[in-house]
Amino acid sequence: MYLTGFHAIEERIRSGKGQACGPLLLAKAGPRAREIVTLAIENKIRVDRVGTFDLERLAPDHRGIALQIEEDDGSADISFENFLAGLGERRDALVLILDEITDPHNYGAILRNCDQFGADLVLGRNRRSAKNAVIISQTSAGAVSWVPQAETPNLVRAVEDLKEAGFWIYGADMEGEPVYAKDLTGRIALVLGSEGSGISRLLRERCDGMLGIPSVGRIDSLNVSVAAGVFLYEARRQRVTN
Amino acid sequence: MYLTGFHAIEERIRSGKGQACGPLLLAKAGPRAREIVTLAIENKIRVDRVGTFDLERLAPDHRGIALQIEEDDGSADISFENFLAGLGERRDALVLILDEITDPHNYGAILRNCDQFGADLVLGRNRRSAKNAVIISQTSAGAVSWVPQAETPNLVRAVEDLKEAGFWIYGADMEGEPVYAKDLTGRIALVLGSEGSGISRLLRERCDGMLGIPSVGRIDSLNVSVAAGVFLYEARRQRVTN
Repeated sequence: MYLTGFHAIEERIRSGKGQACGPLLLAKAGPRAREIVTLAIENKIRVDRVGTFDLERLAPDHRGIALQIEEDDGSADISFENFLAGLGERRDALVLILDEITDPHNYGAILRNCDQFGADLVLGRNRRSAKNAVIISQTSAGAVSWVPQAETPNLVRAVEDLKEAGFWIYGADMEGEPVYAKDLTGRIALVLGSEGSGISRLLRERCDGMLGIPSVGRIDSLNVSVAAGVFLYEARRQRVTN
Repeated sequence: MYLTGFHAIEERIRSGKGQACGPLLLAKAGPRAREIVTLAIENKIRVDRVGTFDLERLAPDHRGIALQIEEDDGSADISFENFLAGLGERRDALVLILDEITDPHNYGAILRNCDQFGADLVLGRNRRSAKNAVIISQTSAGAVSWVPQAETPNLVRAVEDLKEAGFWIYGADMEGEPVYAKDLTGRIALVLGSEGSGISRLLRERCDGMLGIPSVGRIDSLNVSVAAGVFLYEARRQRVTN
């Protein structure tokens, strides 16, 4: 499997998982590609010169460079139990719970937001349902290697555990209370459902409240990764300004 | 050219431009498809039953239904001059200036945000550079038919005109002042550059200030449509809460 995209390759190597990948295939050396080659060499990753045609065949999306990776998606997996155990005294932890976000583009874009706004954990029932390592890695601009992600077979149970750990649980729902009207400091978990069907009933019932992003438009449906970005931005804004 | 996607077809018909399109091709009638057929009939659009194979050939992306549209992209075009002339006494107009956003997925997603957060105008040098009517219509979830869009050959000149009309001009730049620290009520125009190269120099020099979305992460680069969503959300939040 080949990773293309300068950002994604760079972050993958920097994440220290570089040893488990390679070689780096180079067909055309622009300035960005050269930076990555230097980085690869520093990380003891073999660099092979290949012809553009060969690279085209292996990684049609390449921009002169591609990194061979294993099937493993290189993501920053941790266990939910370890996350809870590691919380310690942290008062402002921020968790994103994804209820059946299956599209890898959306999953990747959400990880990119999580990096930007400092989410401490992305929790899903089955992250593998959005499994498409290369798309996720590229849309996340490499954030898949940084943002802690956990899977659990039972999200309802996980929400109960988070409540016991002092988290407030809020569901994203366009009909909900405006997100800016709610105190989002402290330990907070936001539940996002799929664009089509929203949050499943059992999970919705466990939420302490529903939060919306008020629309003044006619369509009233943000893309789920934009919605995630706005929720995380607002939580971060409040932590900084309150 | 065929439009697929329930949202996009529905909004296209509702926008009142329905008369200029059709027929609606129906291969498989689920509940959503039936709603759209009813809407089409109300709008005097011909509905043709076709075989799934035929539809596959015409519109590979279809979910049982597709609307034939003309090459015209059905967008809500207005002239920049008419926008300025129609401002009247409005004190809180919100304009988004796109400096070379060429990817049609990003352009469509930005339009969807503009609908949600009530931008009054999307202004670009060359909207056609992101011309791919079907992708834009679908990623915008139909917002392309609602959100007023204008083109101008000279964005610098347009910014001067906006200033004369009392607008404050802010550029999006991750190094800029945090967006939540700035008063964004009143007449505001936000300039967004491309993900790669940012805002062009001449345009940047005309800005009254640069606004950023602070990152606590390692990557520091939001997707441009998420960044647009956060900027527009923040402007809207301030209008509601200040």
